Amino acid sequence: MTCTRTEARSPSRGQSRGLSRSWEERRTRSRGRKLAFGLFGILGAVLIMAGPATAQEITPDALMAMVEDNTALLASLWLIVAGCLVFLMQAGFALVEAGLTRGKNIGNIMAKNLADMAIGALAFWAVGFGFAFGSDGGSLIGTDNFFLSGMSESFLGGGDVLATPSFFFFQVVFAATAVTIASGAMAERTRFPAYLAFSAVMTGFIYPVVVHSFWHGDGLLSDLAIGDARFSDFAGSSIVHSAGGWAALMGAIFLGPRIGKYGPDGAPRAIPGHNVGFVVVGVFILWFGWFGFNAGSELAMDEAVAHLIVTTLLAASAGVFGAAVVIWRKTGAMGVSMAGNGALAGLVSITAGTGALSFTGSVIVGFIGGVIVVYSVLFIEKRGVDDPVGAVSVHGVCGVWGTLAVGLFATVDDAFLGRADAGLFYGGGFEQLAVQAIGVTLIAAWVLGTSAILFAVIKRTIGLRVSPEEEFDGLDLAEHGSPGYGLESLSMG
Amino acid sequence: MTCTRTEARSPSRGQSRGLSRSWEERRTRSRGRKLAFGLFGILGAVLIMAGPATAQEITPDALMAMVEDNTALLASLWLIVAGCLVFLMQAGFALVEAGLTRGKNIGNIMAKNLADMAIGALAFWAVGFGFAFGSDGGSLIGTDNFFLSGMSESFLGGGDVLATPSFFFFQVVFAATAVTIASGAMAERTRFPAYLAFSAVMTGFIYPVVVHSFWHGDGLLSDLAIGDARFSDFAGSSIVHSAGGWAALMGAIFLGPRIGKYGPDGAPRAIPGHNVGFVVVGVFILWFGWFGFNAGSELAMDEAVAHLIVTTLLAASAGVFGAAVVIWRKTGAMGVSMAGNGALAGLVSITAGTGALSFTGSVIVGFIGGVIVVYSVLFIEKRGVDDPVGAVSVHGVCGVWGTLAVGLFATVDDAFLGRADAGLFYGGGFEQLAVQAIGVTLIAAWVLGTSAILFAVIKRTIGLRVSPEEEFDGLDLAEHGSPGYGLESLSMG
Amino acid sequence: MTCTRTEARSPSRGQSRGLSRSWEERRTRSRGRKLAFGLFGILGAVLIMAGPATAQEITPDALMAMVEDNTALLASLWLIVAGCLVFLMQAGFALVEAGLTRGKNIGNIMAKNLADMAIGALAFWAVGFGFAFGSDGGSLIGTDNFFLSGMSESFLGGGDVLATPSFFFFQVVFAATAVTIASGAMAERTRFPAYLAFSAVMTGFIYPVVVHSFWHGDGLLSDLAIGDARFSDFAGSSIVHSAGGWAALMGAIFLGPRIGKYGPDGAPRAIPGHNVGFVVVGVFILWFGWFGFNAGSELAMDEAVAHLIVTTLLAASAGVFGAAVVIWRKTGAMGVSMAGNGALAGLVSITAGTGALSFTGSVIVGFIGGVIVVYSVLFIEKRGVDDPVGAVSVHGVCGVWGTLAVGLFATVDDAFLGRADAGLFYGGGFEQLAVQAIGVTLIAAWVLGTSAILFAVIKRTIGLRVSPEEEFDGLDLAEHGSPGYGLESLSMG
Repeated sequence: MTCTRTEARSPSRGQSRGLSRSWEERRTRSRGRKLAFGLFGILGAVLIMAGPATAQEITPDALMAMVEDNTALLASLWLIVAGCLVFLMQAGFALVEAGLTRGKNIGNIMAKNLADMAIGALAFWAVGFGFAFGSDGGSLIGTDNFFLSGMSESFLGGGDVLATPSFFFFQVVFAATAVTIASGAMAERTRFPAYLAFSAVMTGFIYPVVVHSFWHGDGLLSDLAIGDARFSDFAGSSIVHSAGGWAALMGAIFLGPRIGKYGPDGAPRAIPGHNVGFVVVGVFILWFGWFGFNAGSELAMDEAVAHLIVTTLLAASAGVFGAAVVIWRKTGAMGVSMAGNGALAGLVSITAGTGALSFTGSVIVGFIGGVIVVYSVLFIEKRGVDDPVGAVSVHGVCGVWGTLAVGLFATVDDAFLGRADAGLFYGGGFEQLAVQAIGVTLIAAWVLGTSAILFAVIKRTIGLRVSPEEEFDGLDLAEHGSPGYGLESLSMG
Repeated sequence: MTCTRTEARSPSRGQSRGLSRSWEERRTRSRGRKLAFGLFGILGAVLIMAGPATAQEITPDALMAMVEDNTALLASLWLIVAGCLVFLMQAGFALVEAGLTRGKNIGNIMAKNLADMAIGALAFWAVGFGFAFGSDGGSLIGTDNFFLSGMSESFLGGGDVLATPSFFFFQVVFAATAVTIASGAMAERTRFPAYLAFSAVMTGFIYPVVVHSFWHGDGLLSDLAIGDARFSDFAGSSIVHSAGGWAALMGAIFLGPRIGKYGPDGAPRAIPGHNVGFVVVGVFILWFGWFGFNAGSELAMDEAVAHLIVTTLLAASAGVFGAAVVIWRKTGAMGVSMAGNGALAGLVSITAGTGALSFTGSVIVGFIGGVIVVYSVLFIEKRGVDDPVGAVSVHGVCGVWGTLAVGLFATVDDAFLGRADAGLFYGGGFEQLAVQAIGVTLIAAWVLGTSAILFAVIKRTIGLRVSPEEEFDGLDLAEHGSPGYGLESLSMG
Repeated sequence: MTCTRTEARSPSRGQSRGLSRSWEERRTRSRGRKLAFGLFGILGAVLIMAGPATAQEITPDALMAMVEDNTALLASLWLIVAGCLVFLMQAGFALVEAGLTRGKNIGNIMAKNLADMAIGALAFWAVGFGFAFGSDGGSLIGTDNFFLSGMSESFLGGGDVLATPSFFFFQVVFAATAVTIASGAMAERTRFPAYLAFSAVMTGFIYPVVVHSFWHGDGLLSDLAIGDARFSDFAGSSIVHSAGGWAALMGAIFLGPRIGKYGPDGAPRAIPGHNVGFVVVGVFILWFGWFGFNAGSELAMDEAVAHLIVTTLLAASAGVFGAAVVIWRKTGAMGVSMAGNGALAGLVSITAGTGALSFTGSVIVGFIGGVIVVYSVLFIEKRGVDDPVGAVSVHGVCGVWGTLAVGLFATVDDAFLGRADAGLFYGGGFEQLAVQAIGVTLIAAWVLGTSAILFAVIKRTIGLRVSPEEEFDGLDLAEHGSPGYGLESLSMG
């Protein structure tokens, strides 16, 4: 695998592999590998090496260590697969945003989403992960683990998967998600360098503080509770999505609306997107990735994972239904993009309660999320905030709804197993709803405040918005030097 | 994870997690979690908690229970991952259908595919899963398990993965697949509300009856056999694909052809699709999802899975080859869309025999499937049935072929292992072919009959087809209020 | 599952399944299945069947065999999932190539990528896998295992996953990747039959020889070393990517540039692509697939996998950054397609050292890869070689860079575990760099030589290039009979 490791091994190790000289030789090498990996579980490894001939040496302890290793590998595998699904969400975000806006800006939108992943990964590697998951004495921010310096790679023989690159990978794609939410709300008028600066600070600082405060055991707010009712946001309706949504709102406010969005009378006008196919394919990809987002948040491969998958599926489906019914009744036509946003609304809404809600609960919460998103989009538009893709409504407003919904619909069963579709309503009562509201408010205050400062600084230094001429020409020409579509080349001959 | 469960645990449980106060503490909590989940395997959990210090308590029984739990988790993980792949097939279907039709209907096509997933999930959750997998006294339909009421979440300590949400998830994405097949055949002229009604009844009733009858142990036809030859349709060439294909055929017949499809002389005319890139990318996504479709149908993670993956790959490849050769010879040009349909034809053809066929067998069956699909498309077109995407040929006709092919090419090896590429031809002889044909016929009769009734009812109530003006304008304008493409926005400036 | 196997079982086995007659019955059957699969591990299977009631029979040996079976199943599952991700890379390649070229050729580009997978799978099944992984007496090519004839399906009870279809699947998608690289460099002017011939020989012969020589234990060059410094190319920066890149270079040279690429003065002119959205979505899909490509190359599910995932992520991110900085400085605009190529450059660059490099090392190597790709694209263009997508630079040049980088940046830690982000520089010194250079040169010589012969033969027989008229009209019309886009159908009404 590495040249150095290869030296200590027989030739065909790693990708120098294949159907090698003899099966027996391969098995021997395979055992050597296990020993190398099992430094912390020497006994098991020795026994593996010894093989069947030395059955008398196989102790229950050693066997149990081996079984636990497999359980840890299952967790690592699921975290990695789930992380890959979440990674692909970037493509989904890019498609949805591109589809809902005009073709003259598609290159800029693609560039922003590419940059979100690239900058996000580098910023989270350098400082964000340390701020989010470094240790501290119970504050808002971690203070070590920068550049992954404190990371172990070992989790077999008693180590913890959550201290390894598996966990970093799952977290870094979350961070990229949080930042890319704002991209849509700021579409079609933001200077590219300004967006990059926002992206770096959001992934490297603003988002990690939220994560550390709530999700890290050291975090100041990790014990946030009223009596027995503890704040609960399982996969991040608020911690990820509403955080992204509030930054999106602040960005849209600082930027102001696109030219032509509001008529001389101040009434909003539709600026149609250019490709509904991109929108819906993007929604499917996001939905696909969300299975990893929600169910990977279990941070283990156990019996709960499938429950998380199914509540995610049902809430998204109900969200489509909710948004479709409302837009159909209001306009007389089943708006396709709005139905797609309904799916995303359902997904954001179930993110907090994906584990706490019953199947029926997830349908209700998702349906309401779909209803909310339509009204929210119309409300925000009327208030003079131009959010071309509805990011504030989908991620911000439905993120809040999803977090509050845990206080309304979480089931009372203490034991997860055997619950299936138990009672709808939570016995925690008003305290739970109140603590959910407090958590939501704290996150909103932090992100709105810091992102306001950030956008103000960017506006005075880099400059936040392109010129009217550039906006008219499209950002592809203005910022990236060439149109995203080569229409002339579409004609034959 | 849930607020209620969190109470009983230490603070950092679930997504309130991270590199918490100390690794020791985390490990302790981790063990607490295992206990919580292991209610049915108390002994093992106790031993886990006890840890190495109490080695004397680790019994072989307890260890074996732990090992079996890992095996069950492997099955659950594979079902979930495979289900996610099948889920993404919706995006593939949407892209193929959109690419093969005209741009003025893309929004409608996207809406239908989104609705198939949303309605499918809700209908299958409410009643479809109960009809398909509820218990009964040996009839055509299940009578309990509605709203997943009878579902357990526990499969560790001796439970069964197939009684849990993992199994529901895998089945619900199958149901969405079955219904979405018809979407393509009904494209560009179906009223949206009519399609929704069809979609709900298909996922909620027509398809579940087929599944229950053949795949459920209680099903009336689950023992269908002639002598020793038992009906075999491993992953659903007939049970899923031909079922969808027959509904597609009936829909296309009830609708009648699109305006302009047939000249005054009755000869068919080509109505070219608008984006071959969408078609082929959609085919790749479907192919990708089909690995989950076929290999997930093993319902376990075992040695057979890779065989299913490879026969799926080879048959699809051979299907491309078969369709390409025929269309090239017939027209002098290698039609790209037809080659893509060849891949799908190969995939449908191997779905029944993905486990029963050898590698060579899968190449032969896939190649023939590719050949069949070209002739079938031309034949159906000539008969006056307008199927814009070839769904009846790909799913219906090749589904029948794939099911019959099990009777021709299944290998005789009783032991799966070590078979690799054993003999091509099956020793079951005529009886096997006959029982396959009987199964195919029963499914065709059921779906053709019920969907005919359904479409007749829809036609007389909701109305099945849009007006000629609406068809001319495109369904995006007529049904969804705005064009799917914003062409004006593509121009610069 | 197969009709024959079903006979020996109770009715609901395989997809004739569901919530069957009783759970007890299902469990019994499940155990029967385990026995069937455990032919080589009789003892374990017997004990499983015996169940808790016969605890006295559960020996440590039997338990250990069961644990090892689970470990093997984990490896198989990861190989299959990783292989599925690599499979989807075909869609990514198709989108990138289509986006970077003109719309009049999109159908041809889709057809080529579809054919790469179809022909690749069939050629690799028939001969390629045998050439690559068949046994021999230490030469350049394997001599058995054609048509997978020698393949076992059994890896439980002591078999080896790498002798089964899991391994074939992972390898065959690699082969398809190697060949599809050349597609981009040969775009917009290659005769379709000529491309098919190239594709078959590349997957069936040229690429397998490289794989056998370096990656197979029998291979003549599998021990390539200078002193202790052994050639190391973990996941194929050179063995897959530069091999594809050199074939791409030779194809582009033999074809000559597209009409209009060079002005009368010989200066290169830009021929803009037609859809930057396709490019970036394609890049995301490729990146997603690359997690499988690199981390699946571990050929096991172990602690190293997450390290491979994270170095892959970081290098790609740094590659975006590197390419963006250079193109921005050189042109004053952040070219989106070039940033996308930067991601691919970073990915190719880390492929060899994904396991050997630290996280910091992966960032450096990826960043330099991104810088290199811009200069390389400009250099190759100036030299009169027309490579429409930059495939030679991305895969060939960065493949070389990535392989050499192992000699520069591999860390010295012999033990993988606990390394995390250990020292940057390798202690192997000049010898390691030298042996990497030798390996790179041997691969270049082989592929350049054989592909030159191949293209020369194709040119004289089938004919390599379309006529100027066909090139002007676009290959969709010339080779496939219809345009890839139906623009007329985009207009409403």
